[in-house]
Amino acid sequence: MLGLMQDWPLLVHKIIDHAALYHGEREIVTRSVEGPIHRTNYREIALRARKVSAALDRLGIKPGERVATLAWNTWRHLETWYGITGCGAVYHTLNPRLFPDQLVYIANHAEDKVMFFDITFADLVAEIAPKLPKVELYVCLTDAAHLPKAKIPNLVAYEEFIAGASETYEWKEVEENAACGLCYTSGTTGNPKGVLYSHRSNVLHALIAAQKDAQGISSCDSVLPVVPMFHANAWALAFSAPMVGAKLVLPGAKLDGDSICELLTNEDVTLSGAVPTVWLALFQYLEKTGKTLPHLNRVLIGGSACPRSMIESFETKYGVQVIHAWGMTEMSPLGTLGTLKHNVVAMPYEKQLDYKVKQGHPVFGVEMKITDDENNELPRDGKAFGRLKVRGPSIAKGYFRGEGADAFDSEGWFDTGDVATIDAEGYMTITDRSKDVIKSGGEWISSIEIENIAVGHPDVVEAAVIGVRHPKWDERPLLIVVLKPGKTATREQILDYLKGKIAKWWMPDDVQFVAEIPHTATGKIQKTALREQFGSYRLPTAAE
Amino acid sequence: MLGLMQDWPLLVHKIIDHAALYHGEREIVTRSVEGPIHRTNYREIALRARKVSAALDRLGIKPGERVATLAWNTWRHLETWYGITGCGAVYHTLNPRLFPDQLVYIANHAEDKVMFFDITFADLVAEIAPKLPKVELYVCLTDAAHLPKAKIPNLVAYEEFIAGASETYEWKEVEENAACGLCYTSGTTGNPKGVLYSHRSNVLHALIAAQKDAQGISSCDSVLPVVPMFHANAWALAFSAPMVGAKLVLPGAKLDGDSICELLTNEDVTLSGAVPTVWLALFQYLEKTGKTLPHLNRVLIGGSACPRSMIESFETKYGVQVIHAWGMTEMSPLGTLGTLKHNVVAMPYEKQLDYKVKQGHPVFGVEMKITDDENNELPRDGKAFGRLKVRGPSIAKGYFRGEGADAFDSEGWFDTGDVATIDAEGYMTITDRSKDVIKSGGEWISSIEIENIAVGHPDVVEAAVIGVRHPKWDERPLLIVVLKPGKTATREQILDYLKGKIAKWWMPDDVQFVAEIPHTATGKIQKTALREQFGSYRLPTAAE
Repeated sequence: MLGLMQDWPLLVHKIIDHAALYHGEREIVTRSVEGPIHRTNYREIALRARKVSAALDRLGIKPGERVATLAWNTWRHLETWYGITGCGAVYHTLNPRLFPDQLVYIANHAEDKVMFFDITFADLVAEIAPKLPKVELYVCLTDAAHLPKAKIPNLVAYEEFIAGASETYEWKEVEENAACGLCYTSGTTGNPKGVLYSHRSNVLHALIAAQKDAQGISSCDSVLPVVPMFHANAWALAFSAPMVGAKLVLPGAKLDGDSICELLTNEDVTLSGAVPTVWLALFQYLEKTGKTLPHLNRVLIGGSACPRSMIESFETKYGVQVIHAWGMTEMSPLGTLGTLKHNVVAMPYEKQLDYKVKQGHPVFGVEMKITDDENNELPRDGKAFGRLKVRGPSIAKGYFRGEGADAFDSEGWFDTGDVATIDAEGYMTITDRSKDVIKSGGEWISSIEIENIAVGHPDVVEAAVIGVRHPKWDERPLLIVVLKPGKTATREQILDYLKGKIAKWWMPDDVQFVAEIPHTATGKIQKTALREQFGSYRLPTAAE
Repeated sequence: MLGLMQDWPLLVHKIIDHAALYHGEREIVTRSVEGPIHRTNYREIALRARKVSAALDRLGIKPGERVATLAWNTWRHLETWYGITGCGAVYHTLNPRLFPDQLVYIANHAEDKVMFFDITFADLVAEIAPKLPKVELYVCLTDAAHLPKAKIPNLVAYEEFIAGASETYEWKEVEENAACGLCYTSGTTGNPKGVLYSHRSNVLHALIAAQKDAQGISSCDSVLPVVPMFHANAWALAFSAPMVGAKLVLPGAKLDGDSICELLTNEDVTLSGAVPTVWLALFQYLEKTGKTLPHLNRVLIGGSACPRSMIESFETKYGVQVIHAWGMTEMSPLGTLGTLKHNVVAMPYEKQLDYKVKQGHPVFGVEMKITDDENNELPRDGKAFGRLKVRGPSIAKGYFRGEGADAFDSEGWFDTGDVATIDAEGYMTITDRSKDVIKSGGEWISSIEIENIAVGHPDVVEAAVIGVRHPKWDERPLLIVVLKPGKTATREQILDYLKGKIAKWWMPDDVQFVAEIPHTATGKIQKTALREQFGSYRLPTAAE
């Protein structure tokens, strides 16, 4: 027997309609790519989003077709998202930090029909456009006066594109499971793979993200997403902020300490979200200028692990609560958040910090477990570490065009590719990537944990640990180190430094010094390249 | 094209599973119906809920069948909810405040197969049981030692019922639109009508209710739902509290000021929800004893309009934030909440109060509009008042067995039967029930507004306004008044009191004094009875 409740599909344009109707005058402030600060509101955003829908519809864009954006966080980018989904199409965010060849691969794989881009990326677009046969129109997110001179075919300025379109366009009614957004993950191996969000997953994700123990976002917040909209849905903020009627402050192309601090201060920002490197730059700026963060109440930090010292500085020096978060493009992206549970709140601050450096606990809507290689669930004791698997309504069940199917099992669990512990309180800690974990005599050694300790040595700039073949133990850890210029720490000094900080059997069998460690386009250590580089390397212990 | 996100049905037992796994030790404290304070936690609740499922399954209860509860807010009642839904059945809450005949009608209409009840209601159950041919088993929510002596067929104590059942029972997998809960509305006319909640509507409603600008509930809250679980899902708290891992404090049968104050204080309650009469009793107790509310942070007040003086007392005298809320059984029940939007927060307190006395604004997931009798939408200017219509994923699209279909239109809007204004900020104010509004010369007069002013007269205990036939104006208002014992205010004095407080053309054409005004079982003024009583009454102005 079915319930008798309304069939009200969860569609993202209902979010912007709600914002327009109940928070219509709430501001959206942007540092425009052209320069000046620009102000609009949800009422205007919703009207102009309808014009985008109407213009795309007029162009012949059909429901389900992909429309790319290559853009910073601005009011126009926000309009395109709701405008694209409002006519039933799929917004496809391109990450401008990728190599041009990767962008070409992704845009062709997605079969993008239209590309919206910022003036900043005009040269990049001119470079890749000849290799994108499917793109019929390039819309530069600016007005006619600022249209770049770069040689781009079928180019139109955004303001011209939407000028004649109707602001009373009626959103296309699609089913809630219809595709809505597309974002490619840039793995360290293989081609990027597309995650295809649905209307339902985006709306549920926003509802989940807005919860008190997640973002805790309200109409009284002023929210600055430094995290880009092309980076996994800007951590839901482009949906959760309008959903509750929060003010949005969008940084455009300028993510330096000075620019961010100015917006935080002038726009009374209470909540912001960014990766650790952004905050490091802000700290440097604050220290240099002696400025403070008078309005900021809390920050979401994710993308990579947030150091304990950063959490402490934010909280004790600047009075800003840190919410350490972890997620993945495949998870829309929020997975866990480091908000304090009631019994952790009761602990002394130093003990609280032990929890805050962890990646956090899942809110309702994210299931999580750790398993061994045979899919046996491992204990939640904070010690056992295993493959981290997740399940939920905002988590992918596959990649676009059926790629990477081996990451999904028959019970719906997605293997994150991370190795993690879960403690008794449900707080999760990432200890490694599963392909980087070192399997020594049947036991696992975390490469990341050794790296994190090794970079604490005063002479070390960067460290990477990889597993290399060993006749007796299968694999043993090799520590690869880049020294600071002019520093001379020896193999023995480095190993001595590790002693007592890690288990004896975790001790690297050798240390190799290199001038440089290879990185991916998004700044991660490229361990595949390292494993190749040391493919013929033989451990000194291998003869034992 | 569909998105590629997981098919993760929204099922209520996922809420209790999440609570058990991530907030397993969080307490559920009950003032038991037997007397003592009882303590358990989410881990235990989830295990025992599985035993309830297993026992019902063993009994032969099939998915979709209805299982009644006639019970106070206790840990056992909570277990039955999750246990009933966990085996695919439908929890059907019975309101013990209804007349026995109404209960018989409702239980038979629902075809309840099993009835869980508290010892308090043993005599009531003994009285109605002979008239309930479909009920196969009566489970008294107590242990064998406390089993009542009343003559009830097929009676078993709850603890015996679940004793042998498996706590590893696997929840029945049902689709998210499957029926999950049933609650009858006790209208002032006609038979009660059943609202059939689905798993999806309950889960979405909990996600919506938990939002910062709604209940704003977190794992650090200790929540006391005075509002009964048989009263429209206890305003979602039985779902939203476990969803976030909040402590639950359940008052059992004792809702007096002394008992509630004791729980608020001893259990560090931060959030509570109740109708105004409960708070009046609490205030009287606090004033008598000089006690305060040291932990309480905010209260949800709904069920009937909350007087301004109560909001002021809570906020200025006791330091407790009031969230005025409005909803209906048909809405799961939350509709609007009086949390302050950012621009209202900036106003002086007296002005804020003007907003707090309104019924609040809808959060995302509730659509709302006012229309005239021809379904034309009326302006949101705080002045125009019309039929209040709502739409959303947790709002009924019909009543059980197809009754009352005229309340639902083809576009999915549910006519609440209320008349309301909506202001520019989106705050809604109920001005009348649509069947009680007085239609004078094509214009509407709010009976409630006149009543609210009339009861301000020092001699008046209670006032009701009904429309009576008028040859020229169709209807004109008649004011019916109950005077305080020994008081002697005249027709003219009462009308004089109204002058200047309402528009001239709203002035009642006459005043009638009565000894008593009839009420429904749930305490509402029974205007149908009044209209019958004054059916042959002729206005002094009718000859004009």
